[in-house]
Amino acid sequence: DPNLKVFTLNSNPALAAEIAKSIGVELGKCSVTRFSDGEIQINIEESIRGCDVYIIQSTSSPVNEHIMELLIMIDALKRASAKTINLVIPYYGYARQDRKARAREPITAKLVANLLETAGATRVITLDLHAPQIQGFFDIPIDHLMGVPILGEYFSKREFDGDIVIVSPDHGGVTRARKLAERLKAPIAIIDKRRPKPNVAEVMNIVGNIEGKIAILIDDIIDTAGTITLGANALAENGAKEVYACCTHPVLSGPAMERIKNSKIKELVVTNSIELPEEKLTENVIQLSVADLLGEAIIRVHSDQSVSYLFD
Amino acid sequence: DPNLKVFTLNSNPALAAEIAKSIGVELGKCSVTRFSDGEIQINIEESIRGCDVYIIQSTSSPVNEHIMELLIMIDALKRASAKTINLVIPYYGYARQDRKARAREPITAKLVANLLETAGATRVITLDLHAPQIQGFFDIPIDHLMGVPILGEYFSKREFDGDIVIVSPDHGGVTRARKLAERLKAPIAIIDKRRPKPNVAEVMNIVGNIEGKIAILIDDIIDTAGTITLGANALAENGAKEVYACCTHPVLSGPAMERIKNSKIKELVVTNSIELPEEKLTENVIQLSVADLLGEAIIRVHSDQSVSYLFD
Ligand SMILES: Nc1ncnc2c1ncn2[C@@H]1O[C@H](COP(=O)(O)O)[C@@H](O)[C@H]1O
Ligand SMILES: Nc1ncnc2c1ncn2[C@@H]1O[C@H](COP(=O)(O)O)[C@@H](O)[C@H]1O
Repeated sequence: DPNLKVFTLNSNPALAAEIAKSIGVELGKCSVTRFSDGEIQINIEESIRGCDVYIIQSTSSPVNEHIMELLIMIDALKRASAKTINLVIPYYGYARQDRKARAREPITAKLVANLLETAGATRVITLDLHAPQIQGFFDIPIDHLMGVPILGEYFSKREFDGDIVIVSPDHGGVTRARKLAERLKAPIAIIDKRRPKPNVAEVMNIVGNIEGKIAILIDDIIDTAGTITLGANALAENGAKEVYACCTHPVLSGPAMERIKNSKIKELVVTNSIELPEEKLTENVIQLSVADLLGEAIIRVHSDQSVSYLFD
Repeated sequence: DPNLKVFTLNSNPALAAEIAKSIGVELGKCSVTRFSDGEIQINIEESIRGCDVYIIQSTSSPVNEHIMELLIMIDALKRASAKTINLVIPYYGYARQDRKARAREPITAKLVANLLETAGATRVITLDLHAPQIQGFFDIPIDHLMGVPILGEYFSKREFDGDIVIVSPDHGGVTRARKLAERLKAPIAIIDKRRPKPNVAEVMNIVGNIEGKIAILIDDIIDTAGTITLGANALAENGAKEVYACCTHPVLSGPAMERIKNSKIKELVVTNSIELPEEKLTENVIQLSVADLLGEAIIRVHSDQSVSYLFD
């Protein structure tokens, strides 16, 4: 369909190329560079008049650069008479700023939703929002896909020497752990952090049976990797045979790689919703592609078919 | 007035402190930092409920960081029940992207105006917009101040050994040069660049009499300093006795400092609408403060007085 155009900005060019290949289109011609003073310069090098345009861009680090690239691209496409402007945002940044946890905090996840709509976005396709409520921050249609099937497929094909158990690193992640456990027909366990008294170190209780088992920790985001590595070590201390960790979004900032290296985590399985620099793709990091999932979503959205079967 | 609050973000803390001093208030308590992954974290540490809040922030380099800081701060203030949210933007970035000069270009100056309004800004005070038409990009009140009086005051107090002439580096800047010339009771000249044939170097003609005079070049922005240094050299070659340059906004990116050093410019006079790092404050750079001008504007806006006398 000549009216379907896919463009990439600078967050995930490799993923975008894979998506284009998976749906059988060429990536749209466009350069996104910087003027000498750091201002973003966008040149769209082909007509998109009357087209349905899909922009692939995660609002991953450098998050503010990636958000502004996306906003300016939307503005350029709108003024160039695109028919629809569909954002494919594999990783939606600022998602943890989704409520006023303290007085006078911003709700940046909502602000960014408003900014994208103001710029002219007409639809969003995204993956594993930190809180599903963020869907409600948009007044335009949003399709919310899940990373669990991709992670599940990987682990179901892998041969383990023993029984597996899926572990949620906290109470907030139990639903996600349950979904992975169902796919792998495995039981679940939960790490229950408690501070016995104020100013006393947290104690890690493990709810569920992990002894002698292959434990697979799952989270949506692994950022500084504090929670996941403490959890992994607690699992090992409590008798797990091996510990794996997986997540959809490998933010992996600050001390993350060092902590993972020094932890009991044998292998970290992530997706390419966030592009990883060479130095983070160490031999114990496995990166799975969401290209087919997002490609399928684009094709189905573009032909007005339901994408709900892609949801879990 | 306890209902008047002035906050600074990260672009111009020194200027903000000066403004606060000039109007006799303490700066509002607020920290603007980064989470480990680079996302902006804002903590407003005092109540601003029912207050008229003024935020000092230039959208200077790193422009995208500074824009996002401003947007997130506006969001936080709005949710914390500020009565009005007034932006003091000494330098408005992206101002050169103010029209579609080519097909499929964004109009980022308009996009940013929309974003600021969407976030919740209720008024803007700014200085020397690259194009005055940008005022019309806002649907909220905007007060547009001029840097020429500050530059003019400096030059009027300086003793020169000879007659002065104010020079516009191009035809677009003639109005600005005229304003400075009127204040200094000096004549003007214009540098007229012409390309005699395609692919032949530009020729610099000087319209007006500069021979034996002290030439003062004026522009709104000096970015890579190509135009201004070529102009300065042309003035020297054509018999100017000394060449000075001045502008409101010292963007000074890329090769700017090197070019200025190697040019005939004896002294560069700028304002602090953009904070300059130590290494750009060389001995031939004079930075004048816009603190009193902006402070005065804040006081007058806050007490519903006209600021039009500050306009030129
Ligand atoms: N980029 C970030 N990195 C670390 N913490 C964050 C970030 N953004 C927001 N937060 C904090 O994370 C908390 C919400 O996380 P959660 O409880 O996992 O939903 C809030 O208290 C936020 O202040
Ligand atoms: N940050 C920037 N640095 C250099 N050139 C720019 C920048 N932003 C926009 N432009 C270009 O500058 C031109 C407008 O400048 P002007 O003619 O001085 O108004 C347009 O063609 C823009 O493409």
